[in-house]
Amino acid sequence: MTQSSPKAVVLLSGGLDSATVLAMALDQGYDCHVLSFDYGQRSQTELNAARAVVSALGVSAHKHKVVRLHLEDFGGSALTDHSIDVPEQDAEGEIPVTYVPARNTVFLSLALGWAEVLGARALFIGVNAVDYSGYPDCRPEFIAAFESMANLATKAGVSGQPFRIETPLMSLTKSDIIVEGQRLGLDYGLTVSCYQADDQGRACGVCDSCRLRAKGFADAGVEDPTRYQA
Amino acid sequence: MTQSSPKAVVLLSGGLDSATVLAMALDQGYDCHVLSFDYGQRSQTELNAARAVVSALGVSAHKHKVVRLHLEDFGGSALTDHSIDVPEQDAEGEIPVTYVPARNTVFLSLALGWAEVLGARALFIGVNAVDYSGYPDCRPEFIAAFESMANLATKAGVSGQPFRIETPLMSLTKSDIIVEGQRLGLDYGLTVSCYQADDQGRACGVCDSCRLRAKGFADAGVEDPTRYQA
Repeated sequence: MTQSSPKAVVLLSGGLDSATVLAMALDQGYDCHVLSFDYGQRSQTELNAARAVVSALGVSAHKHKVVRLHLEDFGGSALTDHSIDVPEQDAEGEIPVTYVPARNTVFLSLALGWAEVLGARALFIGVNAVDYSGYPDCRPEFIAAFESMANLATKAGVSGQPFRIETPLMSLTKSDIIVEGQRLGLDYGLTVSCYQADDQGRACGVCDSCRLRAKGFADAGVEDPTRYQA
Repeated sequence: MTQSSPKAVVLLSGGLDSATVLAMALDQGYDCHVLSFDYGQRSQTELNAARAVVSALGVSAHKHKVVRLHLEDFGGSALTDHSIDVPEQDAEGEIPVTYVPARNTVFLSLALGWAEVLGARALFIGVNAVDYSGYPDCRPEFIAAFESMANLATKAGVSGQPFRIETPLMSLTKSDIIVEGQRLGLDYGLTVSCYQADDQGRACGVCDSCRLRAKGFADAGVEDPTRYQA
């Protein structure tokens, strides 16, 4: 990275996908500013994972912002509303109850605000249409609509310096993603994907996210570094 | 309002415009859920005004949420960054330095999340293209783009129950807005529009927002109830 590297804002949850996106954005030469959200999810371990990933990838801590969002006030998701159980398996073809209302819209909006202040034009987000097709805000048509809206919403956009929403994982399978992260030297042992990881970041092994992740490592032929609960 | 009234989420800053929007949405028969943001602005008096307006218009306090947003972390606006002075007058045709990056995008995104949980389909926002043409995120083309995006982003949108972004002030002058609020019995003495109101909610009388507001009352032939600093 040189002084003249283009800036990017990268959304990072601490999970496998967004950690890979950060590694890819850095590999593409971006001066990465990393944005994570504390939005009342059950586990703080995801944020600890995000900090560990930022450090391991050599991004300065002062370029990593963790913004507290109070989405739990709104309820409506098993990830933020403690009265809804996280299911072991979601019904085929339905939108999962772990869907958080308007989550990616909110996250990208805040990333957009920061990007405008920084003078960044690229926003990276780890959405994926292959494995998570139940979430409407992970589809390419949503991303295209957000990008159009962003370029009407902002001083930068209307001044002819358009924002781009970069989704390098969109068409990759979980095993493709893992192979790419391995190539870039990312330590997936630092990442946490589990919806109900314990305080030490150990995964449950039974939720949708755990099963998808384990299958990804198996399909990629890569040893699974995930730490599981006993 | 009956049990079967359609629900709406109404964005309320505590200023003249959004207070009028709330009065209009109530007049249209909506069961209004009101959303305000504490986003590190200079003055807490705006939020006190929002609470007073909610109460005066007969909306139950439990339907009013004030969400803390940490936009000041991002800097970039005289309204959230204390190192930038609020100018007495903005240059003609330029985007004001009081522009907060992506503010309406962020506010509407959070309103969208709450609306989805509530089952509301109408989102009311007091944007206006007449008096505030310097802000890109107050234009009809931005609102239309946000609405399209919202209906791709959400479970509700993709299920064929589209959201509508309602902007009843879009084409009104400040004096039109004041006449409408008067008709609906709104007490504008409760509202605060000033960028640098004091702790008691008294306006400076010299900032852009104060001058526009005072001119609105004069043009409407309505006595100005604003309390000014000595």
